[in-house]
Amino acid sequence: MTESSAFRTDRYELTMVDAAIQSGTAGRECQFEAFARRLPSGRRYGIVAGTGRLLELIRDFRFTDAELAWLDANSVVRRPTLDWLADYAFRGDIWGYQEGEAYFPGSPLVTVDGGFAECVILETLILSVLNYDSSVAGAAARMVSVSLGRPLAEMGSRRTGEYSAVAAARAAYIAGFASTSNLEAGRTWGVPTMGTAAHSFTLLHDSEEDAFRAQVAAFGASTTLLVDTYDVTRGIDLAVKVAGPGLGSIRIDSGDLPTVVAGARAQLDSLGAVNTRITVTSDLDEYSIAALSASPVDAFGVGTSVVTGSGHPAAGMVYKLVAHRDDAGEWVSVAKTSTAKAGVGGRKRSVRRLDAAGIARAEIVLVGQSDDDTSGLEAPDGRDRALLVPFVTDGVIDEAYLGVAGTVRARTHNARVMQELPIEAFRLGRGDPVIPTLYRQA
Amino acid sequence: MTESSAFRTDRYELTMVDAAIQSGTAGRECQFEAFARRLPSGRRYGIVAGTGRLLELIRDFRFTDAELAWLDANSVVRRPTLDWLADYAFRGDIWGYQEGEAYFPGSPLVTVDGGFAECVILETLILSVLNYDSSVAGAAARMVSVSLGRPLAEMGSRRTGEYSAVAAARAAYIAGFASTSNLEAGRTWGVPTMGTAAHSFTLLHDSEEDAFRAQVAAFGASTTLLVDTYDVTRGIDLAVKVAGPGLGSIRIDSGDLPTVVAGARAQLDSLGAVNTRITVTSDLDEYSIAALSASPVDAFGVGTSVVTGSGHPAAGMVYKLVAHRDDAGEWVSVAKTSTAKAGVGGRKRSVRRLDAAGIARAEIVLVGQSDDDTSGLEAPDGRDRALLVPFVTDGVIDEAYLGVAGTVRARTHNARVMQELPIEAFRLGRGDPVIPTLYRQA
Repeated sequence: MTESSAFRTDRYELTMVDAAIQSGTAGRECQFEAFARRLPSGRRYGIVAGTGRLLELIRDFRFTDAELAWLDANSVVRRPTLDWLADYAFRGDIWGYQEGEAYFPGSPLVTVDGGFAECVILETLILSVLNYDSSVAGAAARMVSVSLGRPLAEMGSRRTGEYSAVAAARAAYIAGFASTSNLEAGRTWGVPTMGTAAHSFTLLHDSEEDAFRAQVAAFGASTTLLVDTYDVTRGIDLAVKVAGPGLGSIRIDSGDLPTVVAGARAQLDSLGAVNTRITVTSDLDEYSIAALSASPVDAFGVGTSVVTGSGHPAAGMVYKLVAHRDDAGEWVSVAKTSTAKAGVGGRKRSVRRLDAAGIARAEIVLVGQSDDDTSGLEAPDGRDRALLVPFVTDGVIDEAYLGVAGTVRARTHNARVMQELPIEAFRLGRGDPVIPTLYRQA
Repeated sequence: MTESSAFRTDRYELTMVDAAIQSGTAGRECQFEAFARRLPSGRRYGIVAGTGRLLELIRDFRFTDAELAWLDANSVVRRPTLDWLADYAFRGDIWGYQEGEAYFPGSPLVTVDGGFAECVILETLILSVLNYDSSVAGAAARMVSVSLGRPLAEMGSRRTGEYSAVAAARAAYIAGFASTSNLEAGRTWGVPTMGTAAHSFTLLHDSEEDAFRAQVAAFGASTTLLVDTYDVTRGIDLAVKVAGPGLGSIRIDSGDLPTVVAGARAQLDSLGAVNTRITVTSDLDEYSIAALSASPVDAFGVGTSVVTGSGHPAAGMVYKLVAHRDDAGEWVSVAKTSTAKAGVGGRKRSVRRLDAAGIARAEIVLVGQSDDDTSGLEAPDGRDRALLVPFVTDGVIDEAYLGVAGTVRARTHNARVMQELPIEAFRLGRGDPVIPTLYRQA
């Protein structure tokens, strides 16, 4: 696969560009909007993630000779379109919710302004990134909120596509996870990496004791020993025998965790290993983490459930044309009107209304905003928080949102946003969005 | 991100290599095995996919200076390990189920033979690829089996990570889908691509009629017109008015499909457009496709459900050390023994037992197979089919499984395999695996 992101795209984006070039509408000034019609079933809030990755992919969204030759050979588009694609770089404006922000049904998560063709062509990529990364972040945030401050490690690389694994590690980190097992996420996005050994390392050796000795010889007594290959009680005895009472951690990856963990803590304490930490990693999700509230667990490792969005592997975001300028230069709101998929047309901005205690009470979407009118973003009492920030201006990306720095910024923003949500947001049971989305004409 | 696949890996794979090098066990000859303890809840069979992709990623699994410098700077491993990694290339043997093959609980999907370190280091990558791609293929096969021969297009790129989208298109194609919307899957894997226009194209224009005229001008009357932006009945009237009764297809993306499709067919026929095809694309899954059995649908487009494994976004495969040679050169079977995650140790081969009609009746797993003994693979009555084929021999990959040719081969193999499954395999309702897995000592 090439490094150009331009082919991670649905064919119809290009055929629409082709038809629009032919009909003379390709340059018509438009606003597209990415939003979610609803949250995953029963969730109280969603978390936006992927934006930093997305901006880098938009920067790399170019059609090289290789792409152009393939499109030509396969008769996907015609010559004028090939010429247009060869020159393509996004030159419009993108505003959006900061990465790490909470969102609700109808929140205008990303707005893309520019000519029809230059905006529509980004649809697939925008949605792929936001839908997957936000799925992970939404699940991760729920796990963090029930972890009672104990650190969570993302360990699900093996349960999602090998590139998505990197994105998942990043999204979970933004939503408050402490670390990841994934090395590429460490290198590319600065996420702290962790990990010591699997059951195979124990099974490789002639005895569990040999394996523990080898690991302690390599990493010292502060390492984490995996104690459940054969029998947890014997494994803990052996671990403390080999590493001494200064053993860093034990990891338990199976069994009825509340029972096993309580027994392990008592056993460690009785062996004098009172500071040895207990990490659990057995098919955890937000519900099993919550069920361990009263257990002496020191850290959690989470795999499948976080990288697959805990039952909701795609966040359900869509990307719709909401307005275009008519020939007189006026903005015309547009929306599909048939059936349940009808949308709210019109250019949008939004604010989060906070009460006197700084707690979110409503998502206010201002519809029909004109280009330069930001008056709707000013709260009468100074407590509303404007939600959209400029990511791309005339094609120039704000570098503050990219790379490791952008990832840290998103994580910091998320931590602040979570403080702002009403306490009811953190109930795990199914319910409605914790604040309503209110539409106002700007 | 670099092109080396070596960092799409859990950190603990490298720390295990590091500890094993230090303890002198890194070169101990081992067999690892990838298998699924169970099928996704209630499924009757699984479909292996990802193998062709995986082999290319194993070929590219190299530690360049960039990886080595990062590992060194972050103190992940020590100097002897860095040297070992710099020289790394997989030099062992990999056998496995052909891509497109059906599998059942305990089927030895991939066996990896070599030194401990060179085998364990591939764990994360092997599982990422097989778990995701097989999740998609398993869901896709169920959709194909209820489609009654009508073509299915994979259109879910926007509902999964932007690289996973390419893998999903490929996996669905292997499992019998006819095409994809994803351009990179077309270029890299030869999957036929399709797609014409979205609602935004209609909304861009001053009227639906303008949009249809632009599209027909660009692509001719054989195009597919999306008729549900405003009102389906008016949309169909307009589509036939603009394109004439020779209109290729209409696409319907919303509404109560059995009702809408029946009405659309009658309307098209009454307008003389008797050969105009009807494509539906509204949040379909295997159940809604089955519910359209009696409807005059000509083609289906499937998005979210196929790329997310229809409720099971990871196939649940694990990668375990099952045997190693002791100091006397004898194979020792090993397995974790604690709790419900206990495995079946031992080197394995397997056959599918067929009855006189050529229908699968059991998955027979031969345990404890020695290196060269393939006698267990020969069926007494000549009807058993050996399931493992050699993918990599002494580090040399069989090119027949790679690239476009490998993808076609997998699709062909899948079509044959599906013919072999008992008819009960195709019931959508929850049930047990359609054939039992029987373990035999070799």
